[in-house]
Amino acid sequence: MLYNKRTNTCGELNTRNIGETVVLNGWVAKKRDLGGIIFIDVRDRYGITQIKVSPEKKNISALAASLGNEFVISAKGNVIQRESPNKNIPTGEIEIDVDELQVLNESLTTPFVVEEEVKANEDLRLQYRYLDLRRKKMMDGLLLRNRVYQLVHEYYAKLNFVEVETPILMKSTPEGARDYLVPSRVHKGKFYALPQSPQTYKQILMVSGLDRYVQICKCFRDEDLRADRQPEFTQIDVEMSFVGQEDVFKISEGLFAKIWKEILNFELPVRFPRITYDEAMTKYGIDKPDMRIKDLMVITDLTAAVKTCEFKVFNDVINSGGMIAGIKTGKSVNGAKIEITRKISDSYTEFAKKIGFGGLATLKMNDDGTLQSSILKFLNEESINGIKNAFDIKPGDFVFILSGERNKVLAGLGQMRLKIAEDFKLLDDSKHEFIWITDFPLFHYDEEENRFVGEHHVFTSPKDEFIHLLDSKDRKEIESIRANCYDLVYNGTELGSGSIRIHNSDTQKKVFNVIGLTDEEAIEKFGFILEAFRYGAPPHGGVAFGFDRLVAMLYGTKSIRDIIAFPKTVSAASLMDNCPSPVINQQLDELGIQLKKG
Amino acid sequence: MLYNKRTNTCGELNTRNIGETVVLNGWVAKKRDLGGIIFIDVRDRYGITQIKVSPEKKNISALAASLGNEFVISAKGNVIQRESPNKNIPTGEIEIDVDELQVLNESLTTPFVVEEEVKANEDLRLQYRYLDLRRKKMMDGLLLRNRVYQLVHEYYAKLNFVEVETPILMKSTPEGARDYLVPSRVHKGKFYALPQSPQTYKQILMVSGLDRYVQICKCFRDEDLRADRQPEFTQIDVEMSFVGQEDVFKISEGLFAKIWKEILNFELPVRFPRITYDEAMTKYGIDKPDMRIKDLMVITDLTAAVKTCEFKVFNDVINSGGMIAGIKTGKSVNGAKIEITRKISDSYTEFAKKIGFGGLATLKMNDDGTLQSSILKFLNEESINGIKNAFDIKPGDFVFILSGERNKVLAGLGQMRLKIAEDFKLLDDSKHEFIWITDFPLFHYDEEENRFVGEHHVFTSPKDEFIHLLDSKDRKEIESIRANCYDLVYNGTELGSGSIRIHNSDTQKKVFNVIGLTDEEAIEKFGFILEAFRYGAPPHGGVAFGFDRLVAMLYGTKSIRDIIAFPKTVSAASLMDNCPSPVINQQLDELGIQLKKG
Repeated sequence: MLYNKRTNTCGELNTRNIGETVVLNGWVAKKRDLGGIIFIDVRDRYGITQIKVSPEKKNISALAASLGNEFVISAKGNVIQRESPNKNIPTGEIEIDVDELQVLNESLTTPFVVEEEVKANEDLRLQYRYLDLRRKKMMDGLLLRNRVYQLVHEYYAKLNFVEVETPILMKSTPEGARDYLVPSRVHKGKFYALPQSPQTYKQILMVSGLDRYVQICKCFRDEDLRADRQPEFTQIDVEMSFVGQEDVFKISEGLFAKIWKEILNFELPVRFPRITYDEAMTKYGIDKPDMRIKDLMVITDLTAAVKTCEFKVFNDVINSGGMIAGIKTGKSVNGAKIEITRKISDSYTEFAKKIGFGGLATLKMNDDGTLQSSILKFLNEESINGIKNAFDIKPGDFVFILSGERNKVLAGLGQMRLKIAEDFKLLDDSKHEFIWITDFPLFHYDEEENRFVGEHHVFTSPKDEFIHLLDSKDRKEIESIRANCYDLVYNGTELGSGSIRIHNSDTQKKVFNVIGLTDEEAIEKFGFILEAFRYGAPPHGGVAFGFDRLVAMLYGTKSIRDIIAFPKTVSAASLMDNCPSPVINQQLDELGIQLKKG
Repeated sequence: MLYNKRTNTCGELNTRNIGETVVLNGWVAKKRDLGGIIFIDVRDRYGITQIKVSPEKKNISALAASLGNEFVISAKGNVIQRESPNKNIPTGEIEIDVDELQVLNESLTTPFVVEEEVKANEDLRLQYRYLDLRRKKMMDGLLLRNRVYQLVHEYYAKLNFVEVETPILMKSTPEGARDYLVPSRVHKGKFYALPQSPQTYKQILMVSGLDRYVQICKCFRDEDLRADRQPEFTQIDVEMSFVGQEDVFKISEGLFAKIWKEILNFELPVRFPRITYDEAMTKYGIDKPDMRIKDLMVITDLTAAVKTCEFKVFNDVINSGGMIAGIKTGKSVNGAKIEITRKISDSYTEFAKKIGFGGLATLKMNDDGTLQSSILKFLNEESINGIKNAFDIKPGDFVFILSGERNKVLAGLGQMRLKIAEDFKLLDDSKHEFIWITDFPLFHYDEEENRFVGEHHVFTSPKDEFIHLLDSKDRKEIESIRANCYDLVYNGTELGSGSIRIHNSDTQKKVFNVIGLTDEEAIEKFGFILEAFRYGAPPHGGVAFGFDRLVAMLYGTKSIRDIIAFPKTVSAASLMDNCPSPVINQQLDELGIQLKKG
């Protein structure tokens, strides 16, 4: 097709170009007819430029009048000063006085208007994703994502990391209950699996001596999706040899510092704070604490304070080894006014019940220093003073108390803490709080399967001082084992996770024994990587960061769908190309499979 | 695990470090015991450094003596001058006088020795890929691949291209006979397909206004593999809006110029030559000519020259519209001595028969100017002179002549030309000849399916001057249609392929009609992209380059397996992790499929 090719994009002309003859190619974003003079906003990825077709341009004015929204056009003309400038866009001081106009393609009336404040629902926007992506806000998401890719590539390349593509078609393991399977045509009856992560491959690359590996890669998980999961997702995958935890942290901190500086012009600290899993759980009731409120409403253990109270509910908890704990809010926290009215207090009681507690004890100090509490009548003076001292309660303070099994109480208060923070807008979006959570448990006991399972994965190493406990038969001792395993948390969201791996076959065997695998079963499940580890595996460790989540955070959206070009819905379907979809029997025949009847 | 962490890699110490106390971590590559003094070559990705354990170091000399090959060790000691330097490695002038030695991991005896001139066969090397990758040559392949990634990322990013990840889980089309299918757990009975290329998505990104797209991406094809194909392969995928062929060429030429400069320190021309498909076929009998021999043995049409010959074989060919053509070799070509002995000439006759010809006519001019030929007796003087003139035959020249259907003769001479070039070593590896092949046919007639099929793909645009022929019912006319479609060829290998796409729905419909699709069938097969094209698709085009092939060329290997970290065999199996593999019925149940009986 012959047409005038653009000399400039729609985002770059300004008063310095006045007098030049230019060609723009782009989409009709808006058209106005002011008494025969037709003004058109022409849009492309780079911006919007106004063009003008005067009525005396007989050869093109009818064509200009016939243009519809989203038509693709080529317009040639002179750059002139604009009479009524638009200060909101870089090209707002000029317009193009058009002499030649061509329609490069027409457009049907779009199912929704392409405008920043789009009114269509998300399903329609997903179906016509290509129209939705024409909105600046959406396109900006893809551009931002691209900038982050380039920063990640550059950062690791400078540090001598090697980008390696690991296979997408890999071996399925019986562990892989959430593997996507891929039937083989060449080997009928056999299957590949899509990787949930390149974990085994990156460890094998360490065995090969690659030393420093990085990959921005697709991973796959076939499961009912939570609101913000995708069946295929992207991660920054990193592995290093001859390193400890601090080495992994340092390299990672540099990455985020670079990204935050380049994208948000924000200086992160050279070293992120670290706290242990146990400390995070004890203080914040969650393993991904939002450190924007680190000193607020820290969980306080009251078990000792109320041990003489003779309140049956508390006594029962104490006798069964449970915990009584609470959090305190003041009249004003972080500058925000916090007023816990009766109504609000009641709503938190409801919340406590919803998350599985019998009730919520409250305690308030009035301005005159008197206490007001749902449980005052059950407590003796020693207990009341104990609580007052534990919290250093002052007039206007409000305390919420939960009791029960220790982990449940901590988690409950953790949730309540976040709810209060959200309700009273204590989470400041201009803050950027990273923290490493370290020393996760190596195992947790799966009550359903009635056995221990790895908290992270089975190649995670226990901390040296706990290795002797791998031989224990005592549940509490096994549960107490802490691992060289860490998460990176940003403003309360987990951005990544990693560990120093086991490279010693004795330790590995013991870990397998704890989770109930015989040597034979271990070989069946993890054969090729165990084999690799027998030929000189170096000490190694690594980390993986969720790329979609990272970009969503930088973009300021809660939905990763916003920053994925062609996302799937929460039910793992693509509304644009309508997949998954039925296939014809001939295709299944060739793969040696059929749909299961009934 | 506590151990001395390295202060340096095994590739960086030299005489400037003498006197320093250092720690190396690495693998035992070789151990020699010279009268109690133990010398060990320690290897990592960066190099090899010799360490020395003297017999007076009582605490470690027994340990040093016990080390096996591929053990992972940590060695601490002083850098000292080496008595007998090794000039072949950068660290060859120093060694480490070791004081502390630790074994970080042991190794079984490896199934083959990790050495540059490896003796194991490829299957064993693939099974123990992690050991094979410890060889410098193999590791260098991965490092080279990484450098090329970074160059590609950088190059396109600077030019405002946007890296976008397109989905791996996409819609299967009935056309996709070689699609890998992926059953959905959430939507039982439905399937995703893995992309053979992101073609539709990148075109949709152009509809969205992205303008310049690039991605280094995995593609998948489920087929019996030729020697140098992989079920998953990587391509550099590019698409641009508002461009013509020359724009795509210019951007691509810049990429290869950068890569060849940075990797091989070779200056490519600013502009690669272009020839049309028809010219390539006519002169070289192949659509991927090796331009290292561009002026050699160019195919010469003799049909007119011999039209009066009265030789039945030739006359039959002429009468049926066929072709008689030949190639000429001289005594010396490109400095190589070419002596076509009787034996060699006979072998070429055999070759001609093997590729489907009745025979090969030869003609030689002796040093005294007389002719010697298998067909001299059949030709009249006019024909003999015609051939002599066509070739400008000189003493020592040798001519090979084939006759038959035109395309077959051209292809036959093309193959023969390459065979002679290989036999006489005319293909100079120090030459780097790129060429664009343009104007491919839009369709070819599929004799089996008895219909036209797209030569490239159905969205490839015909050249403007041929559009009127889309309405023709004449096979020859349809076959004569040339497309805005191009390949990039390097030293006789196709590196990539692309086209300017159709963006006009009238033209698109006509193309579908030619290949025998009704509008309804077109919608069924290509529905969502056709729909997208109705909402303001810009003129656009692009190209895709084979990344594995590119790196293999730069690396100087014929096998792409050499430059893929974990390749599969020609039967699409991974010998390392043993996939594809059977899965348990419970997994299939969950997917709603079963193996087909019988």
